Amino acid sequence: MEAINLHFTGDFHAITSAHNLLAALVDNHVYWGNALGIDTRRIVWRRVLDMNDRALRSIVNGLGGAGNGYSREDGFDITVASEVMACFCLADDLADLEARLARIVVAYTREKKPVTAGQLNAAGAMTALLKDAIKPNLVQTIEGSPAFIHGGPFANIAHGCNSVIATRAALKLGDYVVTEAGFGADLGAEKFFDIKCRKAGLKPAAAVIVATVRALKMNGGVAKADLARENIDALRAGIVNLGRHVENVRAFGVPVVVAINHFTTDTAAEHQLIADICRDEFGVEAVQCRHWADGAAGAEELARKVVALCEGGTAHFQPIYPDSLSLEGKILSIATRIYRADDIAVAPKAAADLKAFEAAGYGHLPVCMAKTQYSFSADPTLLGAPTGHTIPVREVRLSAGAGFVVAICGDIMTMPGLPKLPAAEAIHVSADGLIEGLF
Amino acid sequence: MEAINLHFTGDFHAITSAHNLLAALVDNHVYWGNALGIDTRRIVWRRVLDMNDRALRSIVNGLGGAGNGYSREDGFDITVASEVMACFCLADDLADLEARLARIVVAYTREKKPVTAGQLNAAGAMTALLKDAIKPNLVQTIEGSPAFIHGGPFANIAHGCNSVIATRAALKLGDYVVTEAGFGADLGAEKFFDIKCRKAGLKPAAAVIVATVRALKMNGGVAKADLARENIDALRAGIVNLGRHVENVRAFGVPVVVAINHFTTDTAAEHQLIADICRDEFGVEAVQCRHWADGAAGAEELARKVVALCEGGTAHFQPIYPDSLSLEGKILSIATRIYRADDIAVAPKAAADLKAFEAAGYGHLPVCMAKTQYSFSADPTLLGAPTGHTIPVREVRLSAGAGFVVAICGDIMTMPGLPKLPAAEAIHVSADGLIEGLF
Amino acid sequence: MEAINLHFTGDFHAITSAHNLLAALVDNHVYWGNALGIDTRRIVWRRVLDMNDRALRSIVNGLGGAGNGYSREDGFDITVASEVMACFCLADDLADLEARLARIVVAYTREKKPVTAGQLNAAGAMTALLKDAIKPNLVQTIEGSPAFIHGGPFANIAHGCNSVIATRAALKLGDYVVTEAGFGADLGAEKFFDIKCRKAGLKPAAAVIVATVRALKMNGGVAKADLARENIDALRAGIVNLGRHVENVRAFGVPVVVAINHFTTDTAAEHQLIADICRDEFGVEAVQCRHWADGAAGAEELARKVVALCEGGTAHFQPIYPDSLSLEGKILSIATRIYRADDIAVAPKAAADLKAFEAAGYGHLPVCMAKTQYSFSADPTLLGAPTGHTIPVREVRLSAGAGFVVAICGDIMTMPGLPKLPAAEAIHVSADGLIEGLF
Amino acid sequence: MEAINLHFTGDFHAITSAHNLLAALVDNHVYWGNALGIDTRRIVWRRVLDMNDRALRSIVNGLGGAGNGYSREDGFDITVASEVMACFCLADDLADLEARLARIVVAYTREKKPVTAGQLNAAGAMTALLKDAIKPNLVQTIEGSPAFIHGGPFANIAHGCNSVIATRAALKLGDYVVTEAGFGADLGAEKFFDIKCRKAGLKPAAAVIVATVRALKMNGGVAKADLARENIDALRAGIVNLGRHVENVRAFGVPVVVAINHFTTDTAAEHQLIADICRDEFGVEAVQCRHWADGAAGAEELARKVVALCEGGTAHFQPIYPDSLSLEGKILSIATRIYRADDIAVAPKAAADLKAFEAAGYGHLPVCMAKTQYSFSADPTLLGAPTGHTIPVREVRLSAGAGFVVAICGDIMTMPGLPKLPAAEAIHVSADGLIEGLF
Repeated sequence: MEAINLHFTGDFHAITSAHNLLAALVDNHVYWGNALGIDTRRIVWRRVLDMNDRALRSIVNGLGGAGNGYSREDGFDITVASEVMACFCLADDLADLEARLARIVVAYTREKKPVTAGQLNAAGAMTALLKDAIKPNLVQTIEGSPAFIHGGPFANIAHGCNSVIATRAALKLGDYVVTEAGFGADLGAEKFFDIKCRKAGLKPAAAVIVATVRALKMNGGVAKADLARENIDALRAGIVNLGRHVENVRAFGVPVVVAINHFTTDTAAEHQLIADICRDEFGVEAVQCRHWADGAAGAEELARKVVALCEGGTAHFQPIYPDSLSLEGKILSIATRIYRADDIAVAPKAAADLKAFEAAGYGHLPVCMAKTQYSFSADPTLLGAPTGHTIPVREVRLSAGAGFVVAICGDIMTMPGLPKLPAAEAIHVSADGLIEGLF
Repeated sequence: MEAINLHFTGDFHAITSAHNLLAALVDNHVYWGNALGIDTRRIVWRRVLDMNDRALRSIVNGLGGAGNGYSREDGFDITVASEVMACFCLADDLADLEARLARIVVAYTREKKPVTAGQLNAAGAMTALLKDAIKPNLVQTIEGSPAFIHGGPFANIAHGCNSVIATRAALKLGDYVVTEAGFGADLGAEKFFDIKCRKAGLKPAAAVIVATVRALKMNGGVAKADLARENIDALRAGIVNLGRHVENVRAFGVPVVVAINHFTTDTAAEHQLIADICRDEFGVEAVQCRHWADGAAGAEELARKVVALCEGGTAHFQPIYPDSLSLEGKILSIATRIYRADDIAVAPKAAADLKAFEAAGYGHLPVCMAKTQYSFSADPTLLGAPTGHTIPVREVRLSAGAGFVVAICGDIMTMPGLPKLPAAEAIHVSADGLIEGLF
Repeated sequence: MEAINLHFTGDFHAITSAHNLLAALVDNHVYWGNALGIDTRRIVWRRVLDMNDRALRSIVNGLGGAGNGYSREDGFDITVASEVMACFCLADDLADLEARLARIVVAYTREKKPVTAGQLNAAGAMTALLKDAIKPNLVQTIEGSPAFIHGGPFANIAHGCNSVIATRAALKLGDYVVTEAGFGADLGAEKFFDIKCRKAGLKPAAAVIVATVRALKMNGGVAKADLARENIDALRAGIVNLGRHVENVRAFGVPVVVAINHFTTDTAAEHQLIADICRDEFGVEAVQCRHWADGAAGAEELARKVVALCEGGTAHFQPIYPDSLSLEGKILSIATRIYRADDIAVAPKAAADLKAFEAAGYGHLPVCMAKTQYSFSADPTLLGAPTGHTIPVREVRLSAGAGFVVAICGDIMTMPGLPKLPAAEAIHVSADGLIEGLF
Repeated sequence: MEAINLHFTGDFHAITSAHNLLAALVDNHVYWGNALGIDTRRIVWRRVLDMNDRALRSIVNGLGGAGNGYSREDGFDITVASEVMACFCLADDLADLEARLARIVVAYTREKKPVTAGQLNAAGAMTALLKDAIKPNLVQTIEGSPAFIHGGPFANIAHGCNSVIATRAALKLGDYVVTEAGFGADLGAEKFFDIKCRKAGLKPAAAVIVATVRALKMNGGVAKADLARENIDALRAGIVNLGRHVENVRAFGVPVVVAINHFTTDTAAEHQLIADICRDEFGVEAVQCRHWADGAAGAEELARKVVALCEGGTAHFQPIYPDSLSLEGKILSIATRIYRADDIAVAPKAAADLKAFEAAGYGHLPVCMAKTQYSFSADPTLLGAPTGHTIPVREVRLSAGAGFVVAICGDIMTMPGLPKLPAAEAIHVSADGLIEGLF
């Protein structure tokens, strides 16, 4: 576990290097005459580090005189937010990876024409840096089950699940393959379906929606401090959130089972209520899971239900919107069908950018929504299963290499900061070489 | 070879991470109240990347409002210039590494008191990031000889040779251990002897000084374009440079053999002249080496001479100056005894800093000279064996963790830039996964 | 006219100097030890220049090493946007000016406590720089009428009309005093009444609302290119805008006359319609003015009406809201009673700031609205006399010296840029010393 | 006196405005497409403020997104250091001023070709801003003598004396005109002669060299604290400094009288010694002056000597070097003939720049030396009348509008900072409108 949490097989370092090589090539191109006419105010390729470092969020680079190049505003994101990470996770193979990297838009000219990594001849060397990283990493659980850990695209400005290559390898090697798709199902499942499955031709046979008694009570209005107390009314009020997720996943044509992650403060009455409502109102089975305490045995019942769903053959997966829809139409689709908003409010600059992306030939791309995971709406305090709201789209970004357009619906942070007492302060290596304080 | 030149075992990435963790902790400490009273204008711990990126040499960080911290001037060096790299290469073991990291001075207070990584509780986590990297990497040559490749401290602001741990492991495992010490012997050998051997208690039994006909002719005044033509007079004029190196190495009490790296444009007369002068005037044997063409066989004669020197037991190694000398005295020692200068000219600020380092308890440290490798003087155009010059010391820096004080005698560049046509543009991965264009 | 448009009596230069002296004292205080504990991220006192210079809108200052101080984000506004200008225009006399300058909040501490110019001992010297500028400037029109031109506070982040001292001097010297209050009456008149008259104890006896046929047609939906054509329907549709202004000014207890600024493209039918509707529907007289062509004679009728209103004694002026109302309450008052919005939407940060201002003892201040002059709402495209809208308050700023809180309801620009072909390029001085190309 | 020390007639404000207008036009030109191909790294036209503000010495401007232009390194100087000030002081009339302003080099292209204010069409508008300022300001002393105070070019990077226009006006109006030329005579007199007189065709008839007993004793090695005590030996040692100045001024063909500014701590013996040595060794009269105590009467004797010198007709003024000499030759001339150095040491970049200036047609310009006023050498601690030293020229700057090339021989500060206790803190305006605390 330590190894996975530190350098692991070095994949993130390789992605960091490939990303920053491209960044260096951009500024170097400008330095040596700027044959491509890059507008230094419109360089959109930032730099990355695998470190939470708020001081690097926003910088001015190229200071110190003519020899250091043209000063400009720049900044660092964390490595998982790199478009290289998303390219890496969505690539079919090395050749496709290189093609994706070449398509990355790094800047715009004064006339607002995109400039790509390919025009900078960067894709080959970036691919060389990634040639080993792209091989999936096979690890095992404490009980010896095989698992691929490969890639880690940020779940807001990217699609949030592991590599296509790892999934395909798993499909060849195993009987059943489970993919974790981060955050709430309105984000994680939607992106897994509409981006990864669409692009990789994957056909999911079943979906597990994970819920907790605590989260459902919170959706029913209970304050964090009071979550440990039984509260049947709040649970009943909040479970509409789960019902909405079930409906949403089914809208993709995938059959669903609900997994209730057991906590010690849960009561039998609460579990019973969930099971009853799921069965009676949502038409879905809810299974209690205790793997945190009992290991594989604790998830056996869930596994059997999943297998049954898969073998049932009821899945007829399809994305929620077609490639041919306009970019704004795609955003509207997700907003109204998944988030159940009445409308979207696209900022004028963002609307213009969407038109420009379409004019530049990127209209066929899917959209990747960056939205709070705390609500179906863009307002993190709007719990339960809200309707009638409006989804504001304040900015859009093109990830031409990854192959999607990011729609930003609120503040997103692509470079975290450290807390007042950083975990690092408690970490050290013991005399016998073991790391202490990591968890 | 590709692997070594790309990510290899990830050691450089680990050093980059450890270095940048410390940088993030410094700014984070200031952000959360600055209990240690760090003066943001006097933070000397820059950031590093393993990338030639001139745009990052000089930056302003922390922009974008109060949430991103206190703006300040900052910059990036390449990873090999990190003091973590030097700590890593000079450490006895993990515990010593952690102690060294803790001693790193990252900043000064308004009252100019040093603030260390230890005060920021950073050393444990940095060590954890380095716990695998610190294990030496054993590789083999094309003919199967074992070689440790471990660490790569910059040869100007650091000591320029591989890790103490690797050397000690080699001494346990092999009969003879050869260490490459970069640049000219006035820099590489001096630092190997005065820093690494002194600190690690190593006792070299013999030294090989490598020369080429071309370099000696260049020292005799021949222009680069004319080096391919035989020129006995120039060789005779330039060989004083080699004689000076022989004398210098002997001053450390280590017996010497000269290795002439053969080039196809060398003539027999030239080789004969070198052999004669070495024998008659310098009292040293000069051996022709053709391993570039003949592999191990081409260096066999040299190897036999080295073994003979080692077995001869004539070495009585000692550093050129004692720990107890003042810092300015140490610089003067090297300048007059190795560089054969008449004097040093220490800039007023540098002289004051040396005094301050001594007052703060760092007076016992050796000095690490940052000087051009093209001349014994600080003027790269002063060839041969100059005397009567003055060595300017324009700046000094404390590497309290590595355990030396750097004396900068001219311009040094700790973050290179890319050329007009970067090598990266020619690199790609072939269909069968091989990297092309790397060399 | 040239003199007025260039340096005039140097008042703006004096304000620039006083403002920038304070800025220099802030950074100098931090430099020399920061006894007041100013948080360099929370210095709100920017610098000013009387020059349209977009390059100075947002800068980083204090670069170049420790001797140049602590780097931080800063920027320049134009001089008219300086709070010194607003203090200057609202001051009773030199002593009051000094007191106001002393109250200016220049920064906050880390604990978010305000730091004032008074704490920096800056107010005396600033006043010294303004001691001549504060004397009103008396000029004359082409026909010889006296006019005071004194002060020029920006009409969005300040109150937009000339100095209290000039107005009081005029009241002593003349029979009738006319004050121009910039932009639309929802902004200019409201601020003149609620800020200047409230603070200076002025009691306006009558108000002139200036309108044009063109503007009313534009409010009726006519495109700019079509304004020269008679359009009775559009005029009828747009005149509701004028009616709203009349009602608003009357709400302050001040009797009104409408002045129609004549344009050559106006038609008799249009003027007749305005006169009829004003009389029949708004109960106000509308007078045609042709002073642009006929000089004083062209405004004589208007003047007689104004005199009649003044002598009628029907005015019973009072501000629209009392000092005692909360700051948010004051904003709501203006929004609902003048702008006829249904509600205001105060951004969370702005709401917190308003509370903080009240806690710090600034709750009694009036508010100064920064809003588009193109609409009663915050949306410049919403013409006519809209209702039902919401006024967004995205940011609030404290002008403790001027004595008001600015509520920013949209984008405001406090440092303009130059156009592609700056007027400066056409200006020169003729051989006989006359300026050409200024207009 | 207060008025002179505050805004006076606004000339400095006008110069500030003209300077900053040009700066705004430079960035605006780049913003709107950069038709002239300005290299943003090579814009040499900084901004100015008439305020000591160290925070503005070095800034990055143009931050905040594409709408604010291209970010770049910039900075502010004080207004007296503006080249506009130097142009203003050396101009013959408005037309010549405009021509000079047009010649100002504001930037270089990527190919290092100069770009001028004229190419930006800036000179006309700058001249318009200066059209009143260029008229000389006539003031009177306490005793009623007329004096022109007009212009104030910085005495290191500019020529340090008042305007040509004022001097010419004075020559028409008065019988004798005295010009103050700042700093030591090696700087002030040399620049007055070689720059102002050469350019304006002025022919000085006599020169007064001002000395003090204190300064001569300091040149003889007395510490500041001991200057109040009689010290005949030190005076005798230090008076060589005065002798050197006398010789230097005579080298320009101008007859000399020495004025000893009397201090209360001077002794009769000291004054006698100076008088004797001046007469016997330097062949010059030394007159005691007590105008600080006795007003005009205290300088009457000096005045009579000056008149006698003028009427004596012995002057045959000529500059120390001809226009036709190379730029480096001119620097060498001054260094060897006035500073009595053996040689100059021109930094490689500076030498290249001088060649470039000559290639661009600026070789005929005089040079303006920026050197310490504390020594004839570049080392402020080298007192008396040193010889054998070398003058380092570390940087050169072109003032094409002013009409000279600045040679910088050490550190120069073009933007001072405020002290720990700024004078501003003690200044205020009394109840009756008088400024207190200014002196």
